[in-house]
Amino acid sequence: MSNLLIRNCDVLNVTIDSRAFILRDHDILIGGNRIEGVQPTGMADPSHFAQVIDGTGLLAMPGFINTHAHVPMVIFRGLAEDVSIEKWFNDYMWPLESNLQPEDVYWGMLLGLAEMIKAGVTSVADHYFFMDEAAKAVEKAGTRALLGWAIFGNNGLEMVERTGQFVKDWQGAASGRIRTIMAPHSPYLCDDDYLRANVKMARSLGVGIHIHASEEMGQTRASLDKRGQTPIQVLQQVGILDLPTIIAHGCGVLPDDMPLLAKSQAGFCHAPKTYLKLAMGYAPVVDFRKHGIPVGLASDGAVSNNTLDLWESMRLMALGQKQTQQSPEVMTIPEALHIATRDSARVYGHPDELGNLDPGSLADVILVNLKGLHHQPLHSVTASLVYNALSSDVQTVICDGQIIMRDRQLLTLDEGEIVAQVRANMERLAQRVPNKRIQVYNP
Amino acid sequence: MSNLLIRNCDVLNVTIDSRAFILRDHDILIGGNRIEGVQPTGMADPSHFAQVIDGTGLLAMPGFINTHAHVPMVIFRGLAEDVSIEKWFNDYMWPLESNLQPEDVYWGMLLGLAEMIKAGVTSVADHYFFMDEAAKAVEKAGTRALLGWAIFGNNGLEMVERTGQFVKDWQGAASGRIRTIMAPHSPYLCDDDYLRANVKMARSLGVGIHIHASEEMGQTRASLDKRGQTPIQVLQQVGILDLPTIIAHGCGVLPDDMPLLAKSQAGFCHAPKTYLKLAMGYAPVVDFRKHGIPVGLASDGAVSNNTLDLWESMRLMALGQKQTQQSPEVMTIPEALHIATRDSARVYGHPDELGNLDPGSLADVILVNLKGLHHQPLHSVTASLVYNALSSDVQTVICDGQIIMRDRQLLTLDEGEIVAQVRANMERLAQRVPNKRIQVYNP
Repeated sequence: MSNLLIRNCDVLNVTIDSRAFILRDHDILIGGNRIEGVQPTGMADPSHFAQVIDGTGLLAMPGFINTHAHVPMVIFRGLAEDVSIEKWFNDYMWPLESNLQPEDVYWGMLLGLAEMIKAGVTSVADHYFFMDEAAKAVEKAGTRALLGWAIFGNNGLEMVERTGQFVKDWQGAASGRIRTIMAPHSPYLCDDDYLRANVKMARSLGVGIHIHASEEMGQTRASLDKRGQTPIQVLQQVGILDLPTIIAHGCGVLPDDMPLLAKSQAGFCHAPKTYLKLAMGYAPVVDFRKHGIPVGLASDGAVSNNTLDLWESMRLMALGQKQTQQSPEVMTIPEALHIATRDSARVYGHPDELGNLDPGSLADVILVNLKGLHHQPLHSVTASLVYNALSSDVQTVICDGQIIMRDRQLLTLDEGEIVAQVRANMERLAQRVPNKRIQVYNP
Repeated sequence: MSNLLIRNCDVLNVTIDSRAFILRDHDILIGGNRIEGVQPTGMADPSHFAQVIDGTGLLAMPGFINTHAHVPMVIFRGLAEDVSIEKWFNDYMWPLESNLQPEDVYWGMLLGLAEMIKAGVTSVADHYFFMDEAAKAVEKAGTRALLGWAIFGNNGLEMVERTGQFVKDWQGAASGRIRTIMAPHSPYLCDDDYLRANVKMARSLGVGIHIHASEEMGQTRASLDKRGQTPIQVLQQVGILDLPTIIAHGCGVLPDDMPLLAKSQAGFCHAPKTYLKLAMGYAPVVDFRKHGIPVGLASDGAVSNNTLDLWESMRLMALGQKQTQQSPEVMTIPEALHIATRDSARVYGHPDELGNLDPGSLADVILVNLKGLHHQPLHSVTASLVYNALSSDVQTVICDGQIIMRDRQLLTLDEGEIVAQVRANMERLAQRVPNKRIQVYNP
């Protein structure tokens, strides 16, 4: 058990009731994979620690938690631009994904994890295919992940079994950094019986569900037209809302859905860049929070979101909520930081141990350099974190007590090798035959 | 006259009809302060040039043009967060600006120019106070600026004379890098006679007008209530629309205003982060363009926009237009790049010589490093520029034929000195006495 001291940094403290303040000139003491304490500099003797990081002039905060992504999709980044949602799925994404081979998921996952580490993201709830490969990549990267193998109704019940087996095989792997979850795609691509089979499997394994639902208002309208129920009502009816659930994306949630959600174990992930880019409207984040429904930051996949940058998600979340609520006074800086930290951890299913730097929590810490000119003069550290910080300001990243990036150098992954491996397959990956697609989008 | 060769870069070419493509492996030849040619690598002999920059693996594009800012306001950055527009002006900004001394403008301007150079911005249309100081800062920084000394009706006609004198004193200074303009604040803080006095002065000096109008719909409604005219109709009536004019911000422009604007010499600057943050609605950029009205990117001041980052302005412009038009197919990547380059130059008043890398144009060139993991794999350079690039990806900046940043090191300015000078006055600058304000906002 190596001990680590982060010395003389400023520490972001976000309280459970959404206040945010900065502890100046503090040390963070890490024992094994947990935070042992946060205390004023000068009390701890550096010679008692196996490793010491000088945090002078740096801001420490919990690692970001990406509550919904399709990380390996980075390999298709930039290939589906300026198109409608229907074309995005039917003419681009699902034909492109017919090119997918297991090793693409491995290298794509590594590339996306590397991008995220450099942006200060230490955990990701990922929803994709060939997830054994994704798990191997997480194991190597040293990050944390909640992995779900995405399945569609027409994959048949054998894929419920297969992905249930994946859940069993990888639950708690990588010294507990990897957790697993069932991941039926959506109510529009899984019928009720198929969703119920997933619920049954999840219950038997003691895990939750990660699913798309009410992504935008068109889906909600289609569901109401076809069956007289909102997608959220469907989730309730099949038993999903009785399990810990991550719902993507909720831009189509109606006011009537709120009470159902409020008494459920569900939380929403929020990927506002994708919503703006695909003109999906805004998710009612302010209303979710009024109802006590947790909301976490997310990047979605890089084919809609282009990057896996949660600084940008945090900023666009705050800006978008002010705009849609027509008030600059809502979604304040402390609230945005609460969503980025404690509330994201709640959606991710680790409400006590992640998203904070409290003693006893898991030691996922990032050190951010706020000395860049875009932060100067630094009248307000918290304002700068929400509205000024760039992913390139992240200096050092610690996950599970281990330093995985130091002074912007990745310590667990080889950037050059990963990029070369992905580039070698670019031509094959970019091929697109519109009538060769893995699914059809017609909610 | 030094000659400069940028060797073996990729070059962004945006056409006047909004197409965008990449010239691979080209050289850019610069003679004096102008582009001499862009040609495939191998034709030019590097030994014939006084300076050679290796552009291998870098993307060259025109320097960004910030068409509306209050650059020295960086000194107040982070001091007015999560408040309504009324409070922003009356309780924060205008009390804070009562602290302003000429030397604050000098150091604030230097700090903002340094931030912008590091983000690839080579020109700025700035609208602020004590503009002699701003001009000295531009002279030193080596960038380009269009400077207007902001005045209010209650400053009296002597300030029209004084700022007219500023226009004369600095027109064409710094070897032509500095141009000047009249800058009455807005129709809500200047009565018609005052605006007419500005028009008369501008005409006599052969310059245009830089003004705020129809910033958001509340101002338009107030103007209609008070006098039965939109702010744009007011501008037309007093003669402003007959001059080259930059209008900030236009979120309150009505469809009926469009024909007036279409036959004017006016263009709009667009600072979408500020509009989202202050819940001002969206400016009708797509409609402006349909009517042939130019739109340029802008940052506004850092107290609303937090940074002076035009990559972010470009991205939020595209995302916001898709959202408000409810179509992911509008404001395509080439259109966004057209606004960021040629159309910004048109608003700035240099339609032929800036915003492009055509032979004969002024040599304002930035080199962007797209090797970061957030760009990989680089299926689409143009998509990456609009949706992935960070200001920290800007590697080297050339303005007026001179290298002013090389490999992220500023060559004309001393970062440490500037930050120290601004920080030394932070306490004084942050003082705020609400009834000590320079104006009252009550449109």
